[in-house]
Amino acid sequence: MSTQQTIETTQGADAALWRWREALPDDVVRDDAETRQARGRTTFCPTVEVAAVLRPTCVEQVQRIMQIASECRVPVYPISRGQNWGYGSATPSREGSVVLDLSRMNRIIEIDEKLAYAVIEPGVTQRQLYEALQARGGDVWPDATGAGPNASIVGNFLDRGFGHTPAADHQNQFAGIEAVLGNGELIRTGYASLGANRIGKIARGGPGAGIDTMLIQSNLAVVTRMAVWLYPRPEACTVFVCKVNDEAKLPALVEAMRKLRFEGVLTGAPHLANDYRVLGLRDRFPYDTADPTTGLTDEQRAAFRRQHGVARWTLLAGIYGPKVQVRANIRRARTLLRGVGKVLTINEDLLNKAQWVARFVPMLPARLHADLESASEMLQMLSGDPVAGPMQAAYWRHRTRCAADGGDPLSDRVGYRGISPVIPFTGEDVVAFDQACEAICKKFGFEFALTITNLVPRHGICVVSITYDRENEAEEQRAIECVDKLTDAARRLGCEPYRLPTWGMAAQSARWPTTLRDLMLNVKTAFDPQHIIAPGRYLPSEMSDLKSQI
Amino acid sequence: MSTQQTIETTQGADAALWRWREALPDDVVRDDAETRQARGRTTFCPTVEVAAVLRPTCVEQVQRIMQIASECRVPVYPISRGQNWGYGSATPSREGSVVLDLSRMNRIIEIDEKLAYAVIEPGVTQRQLYEALQARGGDVWPDATGAGPNASIVGNFLDRGFGHTPAADHQNQFAGIEAVLGNGELIRTGYASLGANRIGKIARGGPGAGIDTMLIQSNLAVVTRMAVWLYPRPEACTVFVCKVNDEAKLPALVEAMRKLRFEGVLTGAPHLANDYRVLGLRDRFPYDTADPTTGLTDEQRAAFRRQHGVARWTLLAGIYGPKVQVRANIRRARTLLRGVGKVLTINEDLLNKAQWVARFVPMLPARLHADLESASEMLQMLSGDPVAGPMQAAYWRHRTRCAADGGDPLSDRVGYRGISPVIPFTGEDVVAFDQACEAICKKFGFEFALTITNLVPRHGICVVSITYDRENEAEEQRAIECVDKLTDAARRLGCEPYRLPTWGMAAQSARWPTTLRDLMLNVKTAFDPQHIIAPGRYLPSEMSDLKSQI
Repeated sequence: MSTQQTIETTQGADAALWRWREALPDDVVRDDAETRQARGRTTFCPTVEVAAVLRPTCVEQVQRIMQIASECRVPVYPISRGQNWGYGSATPSREGSVVLDLSRMNRIIEIDEKLAYAVIEPGVTQRQLYEALQARGGDVWPDATGAGPNASIVGNFLDRGFGHTPAADHQNQFAGIEAVLGNGELIRTGYASLGANRIGKIARGGPGAGIDTMLIQSNLAVVTRMAVWLYPRPEACTVFVCKVNDEAKLPALVEAMRKLRFEGVLTGAPHLANDYRVLGLRDRFPYDTADPTTGLTDEQRAAFRRQHGVARWTLLAGIYGPKVQVRANIRRARTLLRGVGKVLTINEDLLNKAQWVARFVPMLPARLHADLESASEMLQMLSGDPVAGPMQAAYWRHRTRCAADGGDPLSDRVGYRGISPVIPFTGEDVVAFDQACEAICKKFGFEFALTITNLVPRHGICVVSITYDRENEAEEQRAIECVDKLTDAARRLGCEPYRLPTWGMAAQSARWPTTLRDLMLNVKTAFDPQHIIAPGRYLPSEMSDLKSQI
Repeated sequence: MSTQQTIETTQGADAALWRWREALPDDVVRDDAETRQARGRTTFCPTVEVAAVLRPTCVEQVQRIMQIASECRVPVYPISRGQNWGYGSATPSREGSVVLDLSRMNRIIEIDEKLAYAVIEPGVTQRQLYEALQARGGDVWPDATGAGPNASIVGNFLDRGFGHTPAADHQNQFAGIEAVLGNGELIRTGYASLGANRIGKIARGGPGAGIDTMLIQSNLAVVTRMAVWLYPRPEACTVFVCKVNDEAKLPALVEAMRKLRFEGVLTGAPHLANDYRVLGLRDRFPYDTADPTTGLTDEQRAAFRRQHGVARWTLLAGIYGPKVQVRANIRRARTLLRGVGKVLTINEDLLNKAQWVARFVPMLPARLHADLESASEMLQMLSGDPVAGPMQAAYWRHRTRCAADGGDPLSDRVGYRGISPVIPFTGEDVVAFDQACEAICKKFGFEFALTITNLVPRHGICVVSITYDRENEAEEQRAIECVDKLTDAARRLGCEPYRLPTWGMAAQSARWPTTLRDLMLNVKTAFDPQHIIAPGRYLPSEMSDLKSQI
C-alpha cells in the first residue's frame, strides 16, 4: 500500500475496490491472487502486477466502474478477451493497474446480412460470430485473423489488426462505436451521435471529424460496442498459392504482388511467408538433430523444407468473387507470375474431391495428408472460419506441447514475441528487410519466421515471430535481445511497427516530438480527465500521481 | 470596430492586420474591398463578411500568421482554393473571419509512380496534378471530382469528398499530413511524426491513434501538406452505363449495384443519376416553353428525356483493371442487370473509332455528336482528367451563361445549393428517398436532380442539386425553403448529410448531445487553444469573446 493511500482514504485502489464491491454484483470484482496472476501473464518474460480484475456484463456497469475509478484516481486497463498474443496478451501497460475485463460483454446485438454488418460487444469471439452467421445461413462471412477462435473481434479491430478476406484491413471495416469516457459518460461516434442509428452502422464520418480512428491504438475511451463490417459470401473463393524456391526471384515476386493488388486481382489480403513461417505450421524445432543455441544450419533448414515440401517463399492469397471474375483473376495472376514461381490454386470443389480420394487411399504418403489438411485449414481461414492452426507457429520451440492440444499459450508457457514493422512493398525494400532480420536472428540462434501482409497495395506489414523455450532462461534473454536488435534494424531501414507490445509503448511515445506529445496529452485530458484509462497505452499520459500501486 | 478593440489595442483584427503586415511580405495581406468581397460570395443567398484575406506562399508564413492570430485572438478561416461549390465556396463559417487563402501554396513536392502517391500542398488543383502526372508519362492517375479543373485536391479530401476511380473514397486515400496548430506550431501525423518519412506517406496509423481523420471535416488545424494516393493506369478502363426507363425497375437496379460493388465488379465508384441530373449536363431549363415557378410538367420532362435520349435512371461506373478481368466484370454486370436496363460500354478504342467516323460524316444528327462528346468527357473524368463538364449542371436555370463559357459560378452568379445525405444502399431506401425529395421539389417548382454515389457497397451518398435563377429573388427564397424541407425529409428517413454547407454548420453542432459537444470543445482546445481556426466549422467552438468583428 502506498503512502498516499494511507493519507487519502477516498482515493486509491483499496477505496475503489470497496466502492466497486458496493456498487456492482458480487461476481464483477475479483482480486484473488489466481485471477490477478492470470491476467498478468505474457508469452515473453515480464509478468505484470494486476491490482484487481473487473468483469462487467453491461455498459451501465462499465460506466459505474469508470465513475468510481475516476473519483478514486485508479488506473483501469480495458481488455476484450486478452488474447493479444506476442504483444502482451491481457497485461496492462502500467504496473498495478486494474484490468477491466470485458469478456463477459459478449452479445451479438444485431446481424444484417443485406448491408453486411454485425453490431457486437468486445467479448464476442471470432468463433462465436462465425458460428452465429453460419447458423443463419452463412450469407455473410466475418474476416478471421490467425489469433485463434477465442480471440476478440473488437479487440483486434481496436489494435489495427488484419485478416485475409477483402475486408481484411480492420481499421477501415467498422463504424458506430459506443464508448465510455474516463468519467463514465457514454458517447456514440459518427451519425449515431445525431440519432441516425441506421446509417451510423454503415458509414464512417459524422458529419464532422472522425473520432472512430482516434479510438484505435489509443487509451482515450473504453469501447463497449461497434458495428463490424462483414463480407457477403462470394460465388467463388479460391486459395491462390505461389511457391518460389529461387531466392533471386523474391524481388520479382514482390513487384508482381504489388501490381496484382493495385489491379484488384488478388482480392483478399495476400500473405507472403518465408520457409520458417510455413514450417512452423507443420512441425516443430527438431531438438533431436539441431542445436537450439545456434538454430538450424542452412543445410538443416533446406532439408526441413524438402521434408515438408515447403518453398523458400510462399505467397498465399484468397481470390474472391463471382466465378467468371475469379477465373479471369487467376489467369491474370498466373500471367504475371510466370517464371517467378509455381502456382497452385485450391477451391472447395477440388478439395472435396481430393479428400474423397484420400479417404479411400489410406496408404497415401503422410505428407500428402498433411498437405490436404493444411489446404483445408487455409480455405477455412480465408472463408472467415477462425481455425486454431496458425497459432501452432508460436509453439515452434515448445518442447512438449502444441496448439492442437487445446491449451492456451499462457498456460502452456509458450515463448513468443512479435515485431511488426510497416515496409514499402517493393522488391528492394523486402529484400533489404529480409536480409537484415535474417542476419540478426542467425546471430542470436533463432529461426527467422516472417510473413509480410500486403494489406494495401503500397505497403506491407511484416510480422517477425521469435519463438523460444521459456523454460530456458538464457534463451529467453537471447530472445529479448534479438527482438530489440530487430526493432533497431527495422528502424534504420525507416520502418516503424504498425502495432506495439504493451512493454514497448512507453519507449515509443517518449520518441514523439514535444509538440505532438503535448497535443496528445491534452487530447487525452479531453477524453479522460484523470488519465485513468490504460495510462501509457500507445498515447502519452501524465500519470505521476495516479493511485495505482496496491 | 468593436468596443473591445478600442480598449484592447493589442487584440482584434486591426492589431493583427498591423502585425501581419509587419511580419509578412507585402502581397500576403489583402484587405481591399474587392478581395474581401470575392471571398465572401456563394452560389446561394448569404454573402459573408470577410475581414481580410491572407495569401501565404509557404508553411513558415502560415505558422507566423497563426501565431499572430492566436495572440490577437482573431478567427482565421483556411481555404485551399475556395471552390467548394454549393457548400459555401470560400466563405467562412463565422462572419468577420480572416480568410487564410492557401491557393498560392501550390507545390507538387513529390511524385512516386511505383508506390502511387503525390505529396502536395493545398493550392494544387485537380488540373495541375493531372497534367504533372501526364507530363511524366501518365503511369498513375489522380482521382477526379466534378468540382472542375481548378478545384483543390487537398480541400476536397479534407471535406470527405469523392470521385470515380477505385481511389474514389478520398477519406481513405491519403496519409502523412503536415498541419499548423492554432498557436502556430507544426505537427506531422502518423509515422512521419517518428521520422519515418517514407512509410509515413504510404501507411495510415501511427503507431497510436489516427489523427488524420480528425482533420477531415474539422477546424482543428491548418493542413499545409499531405500525401494523396494515386491509381496506377490500368490496362483497361471501360465506361459502363446502364439505362433504366421503367421506374418500377429502380429497386432491382439498386440491389444489383450493391451486389456488384460487394463483388468488386464495378471497380470504380458507381454513380446513379436521375433524368434531371443527366439533362442538366446536356441542356438548360427551357424558358421558352416551361414555367420556372412550377418547374417542368411530367409531360415536358418526358419529352425532354426523349429529345436528349436520356433515361429515367442512368448508372455510370468505371470498370478498371487488366483486360481479362474487365471483360469478366462486364460479363458479370451484364448478367446481373439483365432485364433491368440497357447496358452499354465505352472504352478508348471504341470512342476513337466513333470519333473518326463522326469526323468524316459531318451530317450525323446533332444528338449523336452530343452523345459522343458526353461519352468522351465521361471517359476523361473516369480516367482522372478533371473536365469542366459536370459543373454545367449548376447552370441549369441560368438564363444567359453556361459553364463552357469559361466563367466561374461566383462571377456568373449561379444559383446552386446542394444537400447530400447518406442513405443505406437498398432498393427500398433509394425509392423512399427519391419519392420524398421528388415531391418536395415539385411543390417548390424545382427540377429534382439527383445522383447517388455507391461509394462503399453498403451506403450511397446522395447529392440533391437545387439550381435556380439568382436574379429572381422569389425563386431564391423558394430554393432556400426547398433545401430546408429536403434536409428535414432526409432526416425523417434517418439520413444525415455526409457534408455540410458553411451556413448549416452551427445548426448541426447544436444538435450534438451535450457529452459529445463538451468532449469536442475540449479536443478543439487541445489543438487550437484560442479557438481561432474556423470557429463554427463542423465542430463546436466557444467563440463568445473572439475579436472577429471589424
